[in-house]
Amino acid sequence: MNTLTDPSAASHHEANSSAAKHGNAVLAFDVGGTDMKSGIVVGDVNSGAIEVLDVRRHPTPLDGARSGESVCARIVELTQEYRAAYPQLVIDAVGVTVPGIVDEEAGIGVFSANLGWKDFPFTATLTQALGLPVGFGHDVSMAGEAEFRLGAAVGKKDVLILVIGTGIAGAVLCDGHRVAGGGYAGEIGHALVPGPEGAPVILESLGSAGAVARRYTQATGSVVSGARDVVALAAEGDAAAVAVWKDAIDALAFSISQCVSILGTETVVLGGGLSMAGPALFEPLAARVDELLTFHRRPEYVHAALGENAGLIGSALKARSLAGGA
Amino acid sequence: MNTLTDPSAASHHEANSSAAKHGNAVLAFDVGGTDMKSGIVVGDVNSGAIEVLDVRRHPTPLDGARSGESVCARIVELTQEYRAAYPQLVIDAVGVTVPGIVDEEAGIGVFSANLGWKDFPFTATLTQALGLPVGFGHDVSMAGEAEFRLGAAVGKKDVLILVIGTGIAGAVLCDGHRVAGGGYAGEIGHALVPGPEGAPVILESLGSAGAVARRYTQATGSVVSGARDVVALAAEGDAAAVAVWKDAIDALAFSISQCVSILGTETVVLGGGLSMAGPALFEPLAARVDELLTFHRRPEYVHAALGENAGLIGSALKARSLAGGA
Repeated sequence: MNTLTDPSAASHHEANSSAAKHGNAVLAFDVGGTDMKSGIVVGDVNSGAIEVLDVRRHPTPLDGARSGESVCARIVELTQEYRAAYPQLVIDAVGVTVPGIVDEEAGIGVFSANLGWKDFPFTATLTQALGLPVGFGHDVSMAGEAEFRLGAAVGKKDVLILVIGTGIAGAVLCDGHRVAGGGYAGEIGHALVPGPEGAPVILESLGSAGAVARRYTQATGSVVSGARDVVALAAEGDAAAVAVWKDAIDALAFSISQCVSILGTETVVLGGGLSMAGPALFEPLAARVDELLTFHRRPEYVHAALGENAGLIGSALKARSLAGGA
Repeated sequence: MNTLTDPSAASHHEANSSAAKHGNAVLAFDVGGTDMKSGIVVGDVNSGAIEVLDVRRHPTPLDGARSGESVCARIVELTQEYRAAYPQLVIDAVGVTVPGIVDEEAGIGVFSANLGWKDFPFTATLTQALGLPVGFGHDVSMAGEAEFRLGAAVGKKDVLILVIGTGIAGAVLCDGHRVAGGGYAGEIGHALVPGPEGAPVILESLGSAGAVARRYTQATGSVVSGARDVVALAAEGDAAAVAVWKDAIDALAFSISQCVSILGTETVVLGGGLSMAGPALFEPLAARVDELLTFHRRPEYVHAALGENAGLIGSALKARSLAGGA
């Protein structure tokens, strides 16, 4: 499970003066296993002219089985801080995304291994504490929603978003609808692919940036700073790097081909740290998917467009739809 | 590509007298690579009390690239015959399903390898020729629609239907919506699974009834009448049958696990000839899927409920929705 946030990105407080121009805003929170990010989302959803202002990053309060309560208390505090800092803004909704299994409709964090809650009622708790409409959802699903509505997949109906970082998370759009699957959809990082030793393994164990770096180190004893180093070594012909990178491409292509066969996926949006490899990822991936398919249509491949704030934007879109208007 | 129709089923003309009780009816056609089936669908869609009357089976007119025209001409003739035979019925819509790649929304048969057409405008041609609303769709998708709305999957939101016969076809329901994928969804029979020799192969080549019979004969030289024989031999401990059946279960379980991981599938509907194997299929399949999953929810497994007329019923549902009312 990972989020669209890039752990290397520095926390930045950009008290953008344009916030003052907008009377109405959504305050958005993207709760991760380590950090929780927050920001003010302003602009017109329908025109796509969205801005995310004053993005802050704070440690997520980890409190075992009571993390849900602690996270909500922190969200209430931060909302008060933002309100005090921007008295001219009308914060008329709050958006919150969390990792794990999420029942978006019921507003419940069903389960998070990292954060410790089980069936915690986020929407009800926050709605009562804040007196505001609360848009609540899964972190990567909401980031996907943002890419579908405002980012790389606008106008597309059958889309797979793969966020490839330490792990791999996904979001799926079918016939123009984002698939929730009762909170269980999108776990493509834990879908099976043929393993190099025969038995099936999960996609994440071969195709994630984390796996690429780890498997190279296991094969060679050489420590690398990340998957990008392995990609560079493969380009230079380093045999171990070539093998590890080929396994990653094969695994990612296998999973993409599943979506094309089962769902008719027409667009693959690649995000997360590994997507920065650019053509070194996109070209062999497209070629390998092509080999795996027969009569199926071939997907096109595009970069995620909204970057690390996609989750904040997605939850803001949802919150805005509850609050009404733009 | 296959349909829900069972080739062993005898053509039957049941001039059911209850047809006379119903003033309004839909005439439905299920066009296959060999036969085209037709029937009068009456009843109340919303209550689920549907009857299929006077089911007939005729050879499909195969005419190469002009098969689309020939099939439509035959549908027009058969509509006249039904009208003449049932003057008391008001046929107020026609439903048609075809195999291959289908653009349901545009009403176009995009491609059928067996039937030869390419981009043939079924809905437009038939609407003009018949002067009636025409519901048009893909054979297995429409059968799936019928199972979703009136059959085994009523009330379920995240469903995979597998029709396991000579080949394997599928239909997918996500969040209560049947996935069309521009006509490309549901080709799970051509999705990849790990092959017994290492390289990935398509599901159909291991998990279909056709593959089970063929692979047993290849392994032993013994001709069997069908997959059911192999299942029976496996139950008796025949080593080759055990191996072939295990490969089939593994392959089907692998594909089901993909849907659970990516879509959160909660219900698996099994239809087609192989589903008649009953517990010999359902039990090892559920056990193998359970082994392949980790934190995911486990699907339940149910028999397809509507039998060989599911395609006719599905296209009638669609036609009825166009004609309005029940």
